[in-house]
Amino acid sequence: MKFANIERKGTAEIGIVSDNGLIPLAALGPWLDGWTFPPATTDELIRSPEKIEQIRSAWERSASERSKFAIADEEIRFLPAVWNPGKLICVGLNYKRHAEETGMALPDKPVIFSKFSDSVIAHGKEIPYPTETEQLDYEAELAIVIGRTVSNIEEEEALDYVFGYCCANDVSARDLQMQSGQWLLGKTGEGFAPLGPFIATADEVADPNALSIGTRVNGEIVQHSNTSDMIFSCRQLIAFLSRHMTLRPGDVILTGTPEGVILGRPEEERVWLKRGDEVTIAIEGLGELTNRIG
Amino acid sequence: MKFANIERKGTAEIGIVSDNGLIPLAALGPWLDGWTFPPATTDELIRSPEKIEQIRSAWERSASERSKFAIADEEIRFLPAVWNPGKLICVGLNYKRHAEETGMALPDKPVIFSKFSDSVIAHGKEIPYPTETEQLDYEAELAIVIGRTVSNIEEEEALDYVFGYCCANDVSARDLQMQSGQWLLGKTGEGFAPLGPFIATADEVADPNALSIGTRVNGEIVQHSNTSDMIFSCRQLIAFLSRHMTLRPGDVILTGTPEGVILGRPEEERVWLKRGDEVTIAIEGLGELTNRIG
Repeated sequence: MKFANIERKGTAEIGIVSDNGLIPLAALGPWLDGWTFPPATTDELIRSPEKIEQIRSAWERSASERSKFAIADEEIRFLPAVWNPGKLICVGLNYKRHAEETGMALPDKPVIFSKFSDSVIAHGKEIPYPTETEQLDYEAELAIVIGRTVSNIEEEEALDYVFGYCCANDVSARDLQMQSGQWLLGKTGEGFAPLGPFIATADEVADPNALSIGTRVNGEIVQHSNTSDMIFSCRQLIAFLSRHMTLRPGDVILTGTPEGVILGRPEEERVWLKRGDEVTIAIEGLGELTNRIG
Repeated sequence: MKFANIERKGTAEIGIVSDNGLIPLAALGPWLDGWTFPPATTDELIRSPEKIEQIRSAWERSASERSKFAIADEEIRFLPAVWNPGKLICVGLNYKRHAEETGMALPDKPVIFSKFSDSVIAHGKEIPYPTETEQLDYEAELAIVIGRTVSNIEEEEALDYVFGYCCANDVSARDLQMQSGQWLLGKTGEGFAPLGPFIATADEVADPNALSIGTRVNGEIVQHSNTSDMIFSCRQLIAFLSRHMTLRPGDVILTGTPEGVILGRPEEERVWLKRGDEVTIAIEGLGELTNRIG
């Protein structure tokens, strides 16, 4: 299933993506035995695994009738696919051809850094142009949303702990990123972590390392690759991280970006993002995440 | 005033530090007009500035009677001074003599990195020895707790946005910290951010850059310095950070450590922390924060 956080008439609720548009989770009430209040956000849903199975069953049983509850796009705006990640964990230099374009050596262990959770914004929301940078860049990334608490897990079982996947843009201010050696300042500006438009649950993604992934800026394709080019696979990343920290429901892992970022071009060809640019991240099966630089 | 998060009889509550011991915030009820439920944690209190003034007034009016409500130390255990920081922002290489001992150049701008908020633990709690390190180190740090939302503030006004200060230990696994160039993995292990035992409100600290600060390991003094040795003062750090991100109530800034860490010694003299070691961070006016390596 595909769950989006949406706002309608000023209230946050969950919308389920269907061929006929978004169906509000609350509309499934009649098919849910003993249902009280539906979770208002995916953040709540992720932490209520028993509800997901009930919803899945109700979704199937409502198949012939649910389309009448579909909401028109004009009625809603999207909220971040995960509103308030416990941890927002980022992986650097994790695609072979991207490591090559930056001129850095292929890492022998995952390079881990972070963004602050309050840099998350929704599909459709503006990324305010930061006052302190002149080198704003995009990074298309597959985001893993953790569904169950785990530490010290082996690779083979690592994907069992995934709630789902979504598109992310690891927005980066390169001058700030490189200023001190520690990347954080260039990675965690206001609105630097667009997540969405929806989370696809893990069962929808047969192999997270076999997805086409790319970026368009003002309609022009600038990144076009496949998650199979990752140096450390999703399984390996989860296993690695779980040896260093406890992963918890609602934690989000940004798994690195493929080649094609502005930083990867020869210096004289770098045209950094500017106000008014529209950046779209697209990943196979996970929709398109669009944000304008404001 | 000095506020601690404590647990008594299985319930979280706020204790106020007094000469006669900890006074439960709830005991001030009779001196509080129109009081309903007291905030259960400092995290709530920080976000309720109107309550702080009521509490301050009640504290003064209860002076002659409040000591009868004091709780014995055996009745409680401490919880982290800030339970769930929105952001846990760290500053590296921010003391002159510490930068010198590591052999690194004095930074011309603050070096900013982070810990994840779920690495916070309480005074008195064990730091579990991490499986992945052989180089565990301590770092005594003054923690600033932000009290009001702010961005783009000037140095002169920066301290107006501080709720208070507390002791922190920026526990560091040096081998993991240096593994990839990005320090995060070596900084955010389980229990790597002891905070406490209490927060002293900003009015209790005349000048946060004139406080003695130090560390004892198993009773032996290993760090002994003063926050006046900071390269970037508390004012400067808040102003700098506020140009790059919005600071919010409950965000915590660890302001860097002075000289005397294990990493700063000649290689042959480095004896890393081991299971059973007891580390105490002491800062003038902010009490002592003790944690054993478990």
